[in-house]
Amino acid sequence: MPASLDSCEPTPQRHAFDQPLPLKSGSAMPAYELMVETYGELDATRSNAVLICHALNASHHVAGTYGDDPKTAGWWDNMVGPGKPVDTRRFFVIGINNLGSCFGSTGPMSVDPATGQPWGSRFPVVTVEDWVDAQARVLDRLGIERLAAVMGGSLGGMQALAWAIRHPQRVAHCVAIASAPALSAQNIAFNEVARRAIVTDPDFHGGNYYAHGVVPRQGLSVARMIGHITYLSDDAMARKFGRSLRGDALNYGWDVDFQIESYLRHQGEKFSGYFDANTYLLLTRALDYFDPAAEYGGDLAAALAPTQARFLLASFTTDWRFSPERSREIVRALLANRREVSYAEIASPHGHDAFLMDEPHYHDVVRAYFDRIAQQLPAAAAAAVPTGETR
Amino acid sequence: MPASLDSCEPTPQRHAFDQPLPLKSGSAMPAYELMVETYGELDATRSNAVLICHALNASHHVAGTYGDDPKTAGWWDNMVGPGKPVDTRRFFVIGINNLGSCFGSTGPMSVDPATGQPWGSRFPVVTVEDWVDAQARVLDRLGIERLAAVMGGSLGGMQALAWAIRHPQRVAHCVAIASAPALSAQNIAFNEVARRAIVTDPDFHGGNYYAHGVVPRQGLSVARMIGHITYLSDDAMARKFGRSLRGDALNYGWDVDFQIESYLRHQGEKFSGYFDANTYLLLTRALDYFDPAAEYGGDLAAALAPTQARFLLASFTTDWRFSPERSREIVRALLANRREVSYAEIASPHGHDAFLMDEPHYHDVVRAYFDRIAQQLPAAAAAAVPTGETR
Repeated sequence: MPASLDSCEPTPQRHAFDQPLPLKSGSAMPAYELMVETYGELDATRSNAVLICHALNASHHVAGTYGDDPKTAGWWDNMVGPGKPVDTRRFFVIGINNLGSCFGSTGPMSVDPATGQPWGSRFPVVTVEDWVDAQARVLDRLGIERLAAVMGGSLGGMQALAWAIRHPQRVAHCVAIASAPALSAQNIAFNEVARRAIVTDPDFHGGNYYAHGVVPRQGLSVARMIGHITYLSDDAMARKFGRSLRGDALNYGWDVDFQIESYLRHQGEKFSGYFDANTYLLLTRALDYFDPAAEYGGDLAAALAPTQARFLLASFTTDWRFSPERSREIVRALLANRREVSYAEIASPHGHDAFLMDEPHYHDVVRAYFDRIAQQLPAAAAAAVPTGETR
Repeated sequence: MPASLDSCEPTPQRHAFDQPLPLKSGSAMPAYELMVETYGELDATRSNAVLICHALNASHHVAGTYGDDPKTAGWWDNMVGPGKPVDTRRFFVIGINNLGSCFGSTGPMSVDPATGQPWGSRFPVVTVEDWVDAQARVLDRLGIERLAAVMGGSLGGMQALAWAIRHPQRVAHCVAIASAPALSAQNIAFNEVARRAIVTDPDFHGGNYYAHGVVPRQGLSVARMIGHITYLSDDAMARKFGRSLRGDALNYGWDVDFQIESYLRHQGEKFSGYFDANTYLLLTRALDYFDPAAEYGGDLAAALAPTQARFLLASFTTDWRFSPERSREIVRALLANRREVSYAEIASPHGHDAFLMDEPHYHDVVRAYFDRIAQQLPAAAAAAVPTGETR
């Protein structure tokens, strides 16, 4: 058994695709590249693959660290790895940076071969369904016909659902955490305000800021601050920051007074230093547009009728971005189709962010579900796990 | 009986004050002016006066219209007027534009006599308590020793509470609608994001944009959009806009797709055309700073101990900006002081905005409360109301 099974040091790989990808908009993405990372080993029957779909601010780098630097840990490193709920000693886990993102895959920062200039605002509007189709091509290349599971949280959960709808025969299990069948008006409203903050920043230059050697940092920073408010619950914010002051007293001026102000400014500044503004626009638009029921006159059960997978849905009690009710809508629509559904509504004070956190009950639920998936794998896969290390 | 009692056409008056106003910050406001409007007639015993305190985007112009133009109706015209819940045939109602606002009272746009330039960002940070003290001077000038009631919604409700605490002998009744004893971390967070949007707009020029002949419209517009999201309930937004498109289909581009986007952009643009950005900063800071319990180690009951008024508190079930629980905190603290408190938790789908709306049950509650106040007025006041018109 190779040492890499336990050390989990990933190597990002760049996959180039020459065949244009037809997009939901009717347009097409010409030749493009996707960054991919994998963890664990594909078993002999190619049946233990798990695709992890990322949300807004994440990438192909799901788990493990680069070198020994803990700061480089993947964005879902507490969930995916040797001995973790999605156990890479059993499963071959795949992370893919979505088309339009800014972590190495082709996106607005990339050069459009047709013009020799960065795509900028001319990058095509991509949808959740487009991402899923692009991911399917990666699986084709890896020789994976059927996923043991597709899994994601938030926008990643929408991709997992789209997988189950679009490629039903390729998905054994679909795991959608803290997700929703479509954004609400309030969700869209927050996205729209964030976008307005970005596009009205004079450094945005209509999306072609690369040519001007600037980035719309202020607008992107405001956008991220808005996002952060919606990721945290009111209670979590009250507990973590309350009305605590940064200094000894109110300053009766325009400097930071409250800890919450300091935290948000810091988050905004940090984010605007590494995230691409055009990508932010694209990802929020993909969120807005996701609405599988729309083609069925709003009938979510009809939209989910093609699915064949088994499902795990999970939500968090204090998540007001994608509340438990949004997950329950999906559960009801799946049950109307007589699908096998497990649903966990997890008591957590951490709001939407809980899906990324190390909540014991939540992780126990996911671990138990993946244990069951592992038990359903062909014997060849199970044999890859040394008995002594099985949890 | 003068015809004006029923026609309710108000005349704004400018009151100049030469005596500096000491501010909570330790600073002082030198000579200043306040815009004042009154409705109805002060009775012979000067006991039927009701002060209405305004929230963020409002002014001294509480009720009535200028000329016959319904577009000029006051901001609380459905609540205040002849035969309305706060009946100006019985009560002498006073509206005052707060110090630092942008509707005629001295504010950041006004010229600082010390420099001959607009105050801009050097306008002193004013607090809810400072406003109350400034309002008290207006009452002194009008010869009103004691208010039959002080009333306000949201930030206006905070002023009503501050009146009851700071000038207990001058307030018979305190009516605080959709208010809170202090902002939560989430409330402050939304204010901070709005402020960041304004101050990072290059047209802000450190608050001295007047000299540059520009206004930070984009930042102010984003700020207002954020505000609007918090004024509406998730449900109200879903009912009013849902995922309705503006056109026939998604445009797969960056134009407006959804009705909610169109609505928010319109609100932002409209607001940024008439509201002063520095005033927005000042008002949100006054909101952040209001926290009467802070001086008592967080003990709201101790902070409310000096009050002598009777109270009406009201909240709205879907208000997530200042939720019913925030009003209940005030009610509990008042009851701990054995104050007489009426509390109405009103079922409404309209979120925080409900306090400005014509909700029958809400208006009935306020009407009944003011009927009771009217019955407690000295006989001289009651005599001013012709019997036939009494409701």
